[in-house]
Amino acid sequence: MAQTYRRLVLAHRPEGMPDDSTFRMEEVPLPEPKDGEMLVKAIYLSIDPYMRGRLRDVASYAAPVQLNEVMVGGVAGQVVASKNPRFSKGIFVNGMFGWQEYALSDGKGVRTLDPQVAPISTSVGILGMPGATAYFGLQDIGKPKAGETVVVSAAAGAVGGLVGQLAKIHGCRAVGIAGGQAKCDYVVKELGFDAAIDYKAERDLRAAVQRACPNGVDVYFDNVGGPVSDAVIVSLNTFARVSICGQISQYNNESPELAPRLYWVLLTKRARMEGFIVSDFGARWGEALGKMADWLRSGKLKYKEDVVRGLENAPTALRGVLQGKNFGKQIVQLADMPH
Amino acid sequence: MAQTYRRLVLAHRPEGMPDDSTFRMEEVPLPEPKDGEMLVKAIYLSIDPYMRGRLRDVASYAAPVQLNEVMVGGVAGQVVASKNPRFSKGIFVNGMFGWQEYALSDGKGVRTLDPQVAPISTSVGILGMPGATAYFGLQDIGKPKAGETVVVSAAAGAVGGLVGQLAKIHGCRAVGIAGGQAKCDYVVKELGFDAAIDYKAERDLRAAVQRACPNGVDVYFDNVGGPVSDAVIVSLNTFARVSICGQISQYNNESPELAPRLYWVLLTKRARMEGFIVSDFGARWGEALGKMADWLRSGKLKYKEDVVRGLENAPTALRGVLQGKNFGKQIVQLADMPH
Repeated sequence: MAQTYRRLVLAHRPEGMPDDSTFRMEEVPLPEPKDGEMLVKAIYLSIDPYMRGRLRDVASYAAPVQLNEVMVGGVAGQVVASKNPRFSKGIFVNGMFGWQEYALSDGKGVRTLDPQVAPISTSVGILGMPGATAYFGLQDIGKPKAGETVVVSAAAGAVGGLVGQLAKIHGCRAVGIAGGQAKCDYVVKELGFDAAIDYKAERDLRAAVQRACPNGVDVYFDNVGGPVSDAVIVSLNTFARVSICGQISQYNNESPELAPRLYWVLLTKRARMEGFIVSDFGARWGEALGKMADWLRSGKLKYKEDVVRGLENAPTALRGVLQGKNFGKQIVQLADMPH
Repeated sequence: MAQTYRRLVLAHRPEGMPDDSTFRMEEVPLPEPKDGEMLVKAIYLSIDPYMRGRLRDVASYAAPVQLNEVMVGGVAGQVVASKNPRFSKGIFVNGMFGWQEYALSDGKGVRTLDPQVAPISTSVGILGMPGATAYFGLQDIGKPKAGETVVVSAAAGAVGGLVGQLAKIHGCRAVGIAGGQAKCDYVVKELGFDAAIDYKAERDLRAAVQRACPNGVDVYFDNVGGPVSDAVIVSLNTFARVSICGQISQYNNESPELAPRLYWVLLTKRARMEGFIVSDFGARWGEALGKMADWLRSGKLKYKEDVVRGLENAPTALRGVLQGKNFGKQIVQLADMPH
């Protein structure tokens, strides 16, 4: 085993898009687990849009990362040393271990993974936070009914790709919005969406939404906010539901963007718009991930991973996610899976 | 009885605020009821914000008023001639009889009124559409819980004044937003709100909302939209509910006003924003108006009417409502109550 490991700490709170000065790489000695602790070797680091919020020194639903602290992140890894009887050496685990190659943990919030059931990288994707996000955000907030039209933005992302497939399982018409022809082709041809809209290619997004949704929009699962969402909101049907999962187009703004007021749509359509955070459904993750695993096994759900190697590439990967460059679940692989 | 009567028809669809060219006064012969019909003499004409929407030639939740048609409106009046066995001459009724001194009706959507129970003008106010609007919009959409803070805009209006009093009945802190010291004094001293904010006098509305709501905002009953609502939305608590009843500040806009995007608040606070139209609750109006009548009798609810006389003043009264000039329920009295 190495005697040192690398970690990325928050060096500087960014204004706008995070840049090279945002994080600082440190090389530090490998610690020894004390009683009750274990040492985890990180294999897959999850890169997610919520991370931008943690860089901001503002009280939100979760505490911000402090300066000189390791950046937060979900990780799938392997226990390489343990003085915790619940986690023996060699097993695979998932936890919020952060942007580092090794992590000490007392086991709180850590779940064990069985690589025979599914690749452990799925624990940061379809069988983890993004999977639960798609499940609860669509089912509990969007409340789709068979025959309705469900639109999802960032449709080729970790969450969006699942939302459209879940909409199909619910018997709905699934329409994805994504940037670029390749992503649009993917969600229709690979994931089985009924239609896709390339927001980068369409000059008139409202018209594109109307073409793709001839019966209007009953559920909008919003990952992005901004003008894309404006174009969907004006096509909402009576009693439509908007599930606000993310507003990625806005995360780098230092002050709110100006946009047309569209609250009148909610009024005339008696529509509902509701934000949610997947951790509020913590007690029901077992339900969500159990069903997602069933659908994965039966072939009803597919997923795609966008993997880069090396901790030093995590900042670029995060920038990519914030710019919509990722294609599928963004992961940084920090080590090989053991044979 | 008169041989002719006056009515106001839509002459011209307004851009922006309705003006003198919007409506045209006509004097026409008094009709005779045919079999199944009755002739109603209008006494109280209701003036309501929704009327602005009916002037617009756009499909919405209700059909627009057509050019040269009588303007829509709720009316309390008296049957002066009848060939409908359900409505005998002399009784008082409420119906959508429009902006005219007399109306023929086949009785559809007409309810009878007992002037011994409450003044018949209440049928266009606390015991009518505005009352049901306050009741369902607060209870069914806002879902207030005892101890929570409820904020309502247009707090001295027909609906807003009731919402704050209902919030008190629910055991909540009631905070009203209104224009001018007189209205603010009224909602606190007469209606029993806990606090009021004069949006015309406050330079920093956000700070004023924070002062009036030291524990944040759990329910926002929105009648106005615009910057007033922006100031409330940023103070929403986790799991807050916004009941969108009206957006009166926006009704005269020909295209949406630009405003800061605040959807991120719904996300981080997991808040819900939902529009509603009182007619969707039509099957339950009996429940609402029965309770409102009980609370009115027991002194738990008070109301105020802002009455002008003469059909020719209806357009000015509507402009006043759209500008927040009314103080209490705006009514145009078209005739004296019979002795």
